[in-house]
Amino acid sequence: MSLKNDIAAFLAKEFPQTKVTLEEVGPMSAIVRHKIGVEELRPGGAVSGPVMMAVADVALYVAILGEIGLEALTVTTNLSMNFLRKPSADADIIGECRLLKLGKRLAVGEVTIYSEGMIEPVAHAVGTYSIPPRVAEE
Amino acid sequence: MSLKNDIAAFLAKEFPQTKVTLEEVGPMSAIVRHKIGVEELRPGGAVSGPVMMAVADVALYVAILGEIGLEALTVTTNLSMNFLRKPSADADIIGECRLLKLGKRLAVGEVTIYSEGMIEPVAHAVGTYSIPPRVAEE
Amino acid sequence: MSLKNDIAAFLAKEFPQTKVTLEEVGPMSAIVRHKIGVEELRPGGAVSGPVMMAVADVALYVAILGEIGLEALTVTTNLSMNFLRKPSADADIIGECRLLKLGKRLAVGEVTIYSEGMIEPVAHAVGTYSIPPRVAEE
Amino acid sequence: MSLKNDIAAFLAKEFPQTKVTLEEVGPMSAIVRHKIGVEELRPGGAVSGPVMMAVADVALYVAILGEIGLEALTVTTNLSMNFLRKPSADADIIGECRLLKLGKRLAVGEVTIYSEGMIEPVAHAVGTYSIPPRVAEE
Repeated sequence: MSLKNDIAAFLAKEFPQTKVTLEEVGPMSAIVRHKIGVEELRPGGAVSGPVMMAVADVALYVAILGEIGLEALTVTTNLSMNFLRKPSADADIIGECRLLKLGKRLAVGEVTIYSEGMIEPVAHAVGTYSIPPRVAEE
Repeated sequence: MSLKNDIAAFLAKEFPQTKVTLEEVGPMSAIVRHKIGVEELRPGGAVSGPVMMAVADVALYVAILGEIGLEALTVTTNLSMNFLRKPSADADIIGECRLLKLGKRLAVGEVTIYSEGMIEPVAHAVGTYSIPPRVAEE
Repeated sequence: MSLKNDIAAFLAKEFPQTKVTLEEVGPMSAIVRHKIGVEELRPGGAVSGPVMMAVADVALYVAILGEIGLEALTVTTNLSMNFLRKPSADADIIGECRLLKLGKRLAVGEVTIYSEGMIEPVAHAVGTYSIPPRVAEE
Repeated sequence: MSLKNDIAAFLAKEFPQTKVTLEEVGPMSAIVRHKIGVEELRPGGAVSGPVMMAVADVALYVAILGEIGLEALTVTTNLSMNFLRKPSADADIIGECRLLKLGKRLAVGEVTIYSEGMIEPVAHAVGTYSIPPRVAEE
């Protein structure tokens, strides 16, 4: 199995409710997708904020898993979102994560969030995950 | 109808998917609740992050509505969350919002998030909403 | 010597450039002051942003020191500021910190920042400090 | 005079205390520098946090000025910093800003902060500036 498949299977087990799916995982990076349908839209056609927060959270999580291996105990400690533009009601949401730091105890990354096909981002996030101590390390 | 009932009805119309319900709205403040069931839990019993983000977002929104009236065009521009402790799997999530500023163009508030019955907060959020220009005002 | 005096002396040694002084340290809390003079003002009389950031950073630091003891290796990992109102040019800046979490590895707190004598805050901050592992602990 | 020189002159007038200097201003972007000397260092050789916050704040400000023209009333509303690594005591601090959004009322950008000569960033910031209404616009 590839790393991508391993992480996708792990994600499905750890976050069974999530609709976020893994597109790519690379060095210090990941790309995820959230299909947009009626359930993700508010009246008027706006993609709801929690959908974009879920994209940011999962994108960070899988980028970290790609570096440290499948580690369920890793938890979000901080997530800061800026909502920039109204997303399209007709396009999936894509999150592109780049890790800024991967330390022994903390990982920090940014996620740029797009409506698929739009050039300008609809949101931007920065998040911190706490990584549990490994045996015989700290 | 009371202000609380008006806002609850508006919330149901504007955020039809949300499970967040209004408990109280007061001067520059609001309290909301999110029932926790199987759908809100990850394996191991953790309340998922997007649930707590939704609580923060709605708590801010209704506190602002309580001050400016029912205004659908108000949108979140920034939401920063700190996750502090593992929430209880058996208790509802309660969000208590206090507005720090209510300007003509921006409102800023903080939300302290609890598992009902716990003394220490499980998360804390600060958010900014952009308020649309009113006719003949700016 | 009192705890307050110990921390004030430690602060003077560790942050020799800072103009922030300690007013009070209490359980999970601290109050600090920054005198405002010509050096802290921009043309037009606005207190500069970095002055308020320094107040937030030091208020968090001393509140943590009050709980864990004098520990130079504690470092800021995240600081998020919201600037709410124009501070007075004629009043000192006061920062009131309340810790939201004091864990073994991370401490999180909020700081409400006032121009002395004003009722409404001029800024609000939330910050995270990383606490180094203690010997034989982790 | 070039745009760069105009902005540098404006910066010196509006922020007379700042040691941050303009390196480049480009489309939706700017690069700034802060010389590091004894005054910027804490005992042990760490560059102080407020120095890096000033770099982030000024980098955002000049990137916005490069787009909207010299506008003194633009003010920071939010600044969120992540401190990633210990900066070098012997190198200047460089801030590279990229604007994520330039709206009529709000501009949002990110700033990646380096010790000159290091490949990995020492800090990362995201900030929001409020842009005043222009005559006959809103």
